[in-house]
Amino acid sequence: MFQIFSLKNGLDNVKGFYSQGINAGLKKDKNDIAFIYSEEECDVSACFTSNIFQAAPIKHFKKYPKDFKTNFILINSKNANAMTGSKGVEDIEEILQNLNQYNPNIKNPIMSSTGVIGYRLPKQTIINSFKKFDFQKKDSNGTAQAIMTTDTFKKEIAFEVKLENGKSFNIAAICKGAGMINPAMATMLCFIITDANIPKKDMDTFLKDAVKDSFNTISVDGDTSTNDTVLLFSNKKSGVYEKNAFYEALHLLTKELSMQILKDGEGATKVVAFEVKNAKTYEDAKKAAFALSNSLLVKTALFGEDPNWGRIASTIGASQIECDEEKLTIKYDNIIVYGNGTKQMNKELEEKAYKIMKQDSFKISCNLNMGSQTYTAYGCDLSYKYVQINAEYRS
Amino acid sequence: MFQIFSLKNGLDNVKGFYSQGINAGLKKDKNDIAFIYSEEECDVSACFTSNIFQAAPIKHFKKYPKDFKTNFILINSKNANAMTGSKGVEDIEEILQNLNQYNPNIKNPIMSSTGVIGYRLPKQTIINSFKKFDFQKKDSNGTAQAIMTTDTFKKEIAFEVKLENGKSFNIAAICKGAGMINPAMATMLCFIITDANIPKKDMDTFLKDAVKDSFNTISVDGDTSTNDTVLLFSNKKSGVYEKNAFYEALHLLTKELSMQILKDGEGATKVVAFEVKNAKTYEDAKKAAFALSNSLLVKTALFGEDPNWGRIASTIGASQIECDEEKLTIKYDNIIVYGNGTKQMNKELEEKAYKIMKQDSFKISCNLNMGSQTYTAYGCDLSYKYVQINAEYRS
Repeated sequence: MFQIFSLKNGLDNVKGFYSQGINAGLKKDKNDIAFIYSEEECDVSACFTSNIFQAAPIKHFKKYPKDFKTNFILINSKNANAMTGSKGVEDIEEILQNLNQYNPNIKNPIMSSTGVIGYRLPKQTIINSFKKFDFQKKDSNGTAQAIMTTDTFKKEIAFEVKLENGKSFNIAAICKGAGMINPAMATMLCFIITDANIPKKDMDTFLKDAVKDSFNTISVDGDTSTNDTVLLFSNKKSGVYEKNAFYEALHLLTKELSMQILKDGEGATKVVAFEVKNAKTYEDAKKAAFALSNSLLVKTALFGEDPNWGRIASTIGASQIECDEEKLTIKYDNIIVYGNGTKQMNKELEEKAYKIMKQDSFKISCNLNMGSQTYTAYGCDLSYKYVQINAEYRS
Repeated sequence: MFQIFSLKNGLDNVKGFYSQGINAGLKKDKNDIAFIYSEEECDVSACFTSNIFQAAPIKHFKKYPKDFKTNFILINSKNANAMTGSKGVEDIEEILQNLNQYNPNIKNPIMSSTGVIGYRLPKQTIINSFKKFDFQKKDSNGTAQAIMTTDTFKKEIAFEVKLENGKSFNIAAICKGAGMINPAMATMLCFIITDANIPKKDMDTFLKDAVKDSFNTISVDGDTSTNDTVLLFSNKKSGVYEKNAFYEALHLLTKELSMQILKDGEGATKVVAFEVKNAKTYEDAKKAAFALSNSLLVKTALFGEDPNWGRIASTIGASQIECDEEKLTIKYDNIIVYGNGTKQMNKELEEKAYKIMKQDSFKISCNLNMGSQTYTAYGCDLSYKYVQINAEYRS
């Protein structure tokens, strides 16, 4: 058995890792450049966006040989370095070449970017900022702030994982993401570091699995970005590892971060779990659950706090899965609003449903009664604020 | 050759057809019940929603034998009679049974509904309103008003089609639809009537074709309703028909009505054509075009009048079609903003792009240069007003 303890100060808890966020002048007065550095070289596992147009930092990462080791990642916000062609990749190479004069220990540096699409990186501004780097700094707070775009709060997390023999390893992460959030990775960056003595093979398998169960279940607006990246670095420094314990801690960590992203969904006022139960196939359950979490009519009804279950039913029917209106049941938390082919709400139940909708988070559960497959997608409401944020972003 | 003339007063132009809109008390002071009636029995062709949960009026229609004839449709707004199970269909049968005591000439009456999902029809209120019906009335205006929900203006249209021999037939329609609008039919009802002497076979083929090229190319919010219906009635009363002329007039009529629906998209301030050119397959072109017209990030950028083409590129990449960022060209009307793998905008072109975005309608054209297939989807922007309308609808 093992125990998982939550720790403050995110990345600062992991042995041998250093990080810092600074202002390089890409943004006014806010941190916009950050790094994460390990004295030891690290194994690194990656999950990237499913968008066909992958941003330059992802193309650059993929130029390294399979299973390469690195000990440094440079991260910038404000500019996504996406749709910048081969020049975008050359820019990264030129920028990273300048690092060794400040720290000769850096090996195979990589980069990650988030921000507006279609502009070349301001190379010299970024290179000029390297002189501010302190490679012995533990500054998880500043690092988490530097990678924010429309995020309204920084996202960091850390766990100590204590094994039965008393030994322990740590795992920590920062992430960003508030809009352009959709399954198959979102405009989100997440950097996970650990001192666990985990084999590279487990890293790859477990990360893929954890991303599937966390970041890939959420959606803010159904738009999948060019830059989505989840990276897991391990420098093995604790010398400690236990398979189940690590698996559990990684799942907990990514699930918690994905919920933080959703809570920070642009203009979102509430987080809703859309459970589709007893579908004929897993694909049907998933398709219907995401149809619900991405429907504008469902999202605006959530914002209006209106238990308008007709929109839930209609969206399931429109999702083209196998279903039958006589078999469908719809629940808001524990209140059945539709079943046996007809509305189930009287005045009293409707009052209760209205109360449920006023909560910050709740569950809408649709039992299809067609089979045994279940999927839960997580979404948020659509408010005036979302429109404002996204009509004004960039300008 | 033939000529098509636009006429005022919609349905009133077609020989032998009568229509009226009245207030039955479903809404306060507004028309909420309407009928269209023909002395002669009509052939009728239908296109219905692709939503798996079809509303009761659609199920009722389908109970008639194939190629049945009818001369009467009853239409109500405020209540969709959807998700009401077998009772919903029985309600329609009971309501329609009462018509013959007011007009014994009515044969095989049908019904169509739009409004909130999940509530039984107020049967007696509707039946009580029949005494107000005047079956010799020509009241296209009142009829078009009675079928409105969140529509801000009534939608009616009429053409006279004049053949070379001097003879002519008329075709006219009313429709409604402002939100829940998506390809594969929208929350839209459209009733087309004609006195052309058209064979039933041509009616079926031509209607399917016209709907594909008009209503099925538009989307307001990507939500497909339970009630979408397009019906074409012909009483042959003019005795005149010419294949090409009818085909052309029907296409013109449905295209014009679909653009009216889009202009009336809930909260929409502009209509945009999303053209995807030179895709490898027709499916790719269509998928990418609809991805653009339904993307929240694209729709909010349109509302913000921001030529943020990065969101266009990202959405195409996210749509999972075959594409290559080095081959893609993006144009706003005649201004190239992206091509040859990089941004093409200087200060001057950006000024021009900003001006284009301020127009009520314009075209965003994406040339994939992967093949020869093209599709154009039509969409609108997403404004605060959309959120307001849909957060508050029903209450």
